[in-house]
Amino acid sequence: MPASVPIAGNRFVIIGGASLVGSATAGELLDHGAAEVVLFDNFAFGSEAAIAHVKDHPRLKLVRGDVMRMADLLRVTEGAAGVLQLAAFMTLSMDRDPWGGLDVNIRGVQNALEACRANKVRKVVFASSNAVYGYGPGVSGELVESTPFHSVGAPPAAILYGASKIIGEQLCRDAYRKHGQDYVVLRYSTVYGERQHYRAANALYIIETIDRVRRGEAPQVFGDGSETKHFVYVGDLARANRMAFEADATDVAVNASGVAPITTLELVKLVTELAGGGPEPEFVGNDGKVRLTSGGAFRIAHEEAFNAIGWKPEVDMREGLRRLIAWRDGNEGKTAE
Amino acid sequence: MPASVPIAGNRFVIIGGASLVGSATAGELLDHGAAEVVLFDNFAFGSEAAIAHVKDHPRLKLVRGDVMRMADLLRVTEGAAGVLQLAAFMTLSMDRDPWGGLDVNIRGVQNALEACRANKVRKVVFASSNAVYGYGPGVSGELVESTPFHSVGAPPAAILYGASKIIGEQLCRDAYRKHGQDYVVLRYSTVYGERQHYRAANALYIIETIDRVRRGEAPQVFGDGSETKHFVYVGDLARANRMAFEADATDVAVNASGVAPITTLELVKLVTELAGGGPEPEFVGNDGKVRLTSGGAFRIAHEEAFNAIGWKPEVDMREGLRRLIAWRDGNEGKTAE
Repeated sequence: MPASVPIAGNRFVIIGGASLVGSATAGELLDHGAAEVVLFDNFAFGSEAAIAHVKDHPRLKLVRGDVMRMADLLRVTEGAAGVLQLAAFMTLSMDRDPWGGLDVNIRGVQNALEACRANKVRKVVFASSNAVYGYGPGVSGELVESTPFHSVGAPPAAILYGASKIIGEQLCRDAYRKHGQDYVVLRYSTVYGERQHYRAANALYIIETIDRVRRGEAPQVFGDGSETKHFVYVGDLARANRMAFEADATDVAVNASGVAPITTLELVKLVTELAGGGPEPEFVGNDGKVRLTSGGAFRIAHEEAFNAIGWKPEVDMREGLRRLIAWRDGNEGKTAE
Repeated sequence: MPASVPIAGNRFVIIGGASLVGSATAGELLDHGAAEVVLFDNFAFGSEAAIAHVKDHPRLKLVRGDVMRMADLLRVTEGAAGVLQLAAFMTLSMDRDPWGGLDVNIRGVQNALEACRANKVRKVVFASSNAVYGYGPGVSGELVESTPFHSVGAPPAAILYGASKIIGEQLCRDAYRKHGQDYVVLRYSTVYGERQHYRAANALYIIETIDRVRRGEAPQVFGDGSETKHFVYVGDLARANRMAFEADATDVAVNASGVAPITTLELVKLVTELAGGGPEPEFVGNDGKVRLTSGGAFRIAHEEAFNAIGWKPEVDMREGLRRLIAWRDGNEGKTAE
């Protein structure tokens, strides 16, 4: 039985939908003819700003509800062909509130899967993360889907986040094995793009650099700038989510990363250039924020995603950052928090 | 400020105490002069049989309660100098009930830590597991404390269990960083010994072999018998728990494994011999139970435990199994389930 769920004519629910990825994916699904796209969110992290561009679409519906409340989930997933589960605490919020974060990232996924089972939702796409490979000195080289989880040298919140995503993936596998629930896990890299927020530790390198350059201050590089980051453009990710529904693939977990990695120094220089230029970057020590480290240069391989769902990233950092900055310049003060 | 908690004259609480490890540790702490040892258990897995040998001790107290109920925990930890957190679902029960397992293994640890903070408990010893190194082909060689978590090729329940222990450890680290909660994490190998139960996947190789030999049946070896297992004798582990309280060590996670690893074929032959002899083992395929695999021969290094708390295992498999079988022969029908 093929696990493909066509977009046109079907109803989709995006849990944690009032978000960077959720709103972009809603646009993608609507553009491909979805009968209805429901953005389900409790607005704890989600925001009106993140969905301003789609909220008036005639086939878009906004439902306030909480992934921790089964009644909300059972109601919203009724009649859905596909559910995209995005709702999650990331590392920074996990650090502030591990109780809430573990609730949402683990029990929230269980609830969503349970609601999908009750309502016979045909396919679940679960937003996992490259955090399942961990952090610290053990992380370097080519990160493929079989790379183990490294945690030595990483802060507790980063490990809690990564382990919570490992658990979320296994809950999907368990639902497939026990109930035949079709699913695709996409292990997102750090997302960036239009409607960028301040909640992702790695994306701070982008958004804070824009802010500093705009204020006429020197951009900051933490450490020596040789640290690798591997982002993915939000539009590419929206396409990956859509293709994960459409593909025959099921019971699989693949990376969804951008065209190529970048060092933090290259990134800060590129953002500065695209923001119109500014002073040379200033090298600073740790500012007390949770920073995510690795053991050396790495690349998150996305070849398996092509094999599984036919997807590869198309927008490189220069183009993606150009779009982010253009959006920000046209939407001063509307940045999603 | 040294994190040592002397045993003599102090009150200790063992959460999940009506268990193989809990009852042995209670005996160890009482022998070393503890003013009181409280076994706290909801008897979901714990049993009267597991505590029969200590329950009438004048300084032992049995409290029925649930690690999921903060009120129970707050009451029982009042006045405790040390808390040993054992309550957990293992892989077999995690497979049957992932909701319950994740509750106990994650929220239960959070609850226990929160109760310890409220009642200013000086030190927590948390029972983690070598499951934090994972399973499957990635696991081989020397498993040291910095070995990453492998999950490719392992069943969902085993990964859920391992990840839940990783999270439990990080909750301890987080409590240390945020509130100065002293703790020692011991990563237990599969425990065996007097009062052996049927709940640990790896220990089934022992207990099922005894059962078959006693019934006059040929013992069974799964696969070719070359699979490595590394157990730890329950009395050694009770001593490790006691020494973790006494040591100055805090904010550390170390392995607590037995003297040496053993292959499943060697194990089955040794158990058969010690049980009085029996037919040659029969090699069988998978029987549908969750089996925990590795990628080759491995050894769980316990040298760091010696550095941190001065502990090393003393009872080898021959002696430990001899004691297990002697206990079982003297307690027919009283096996803890």
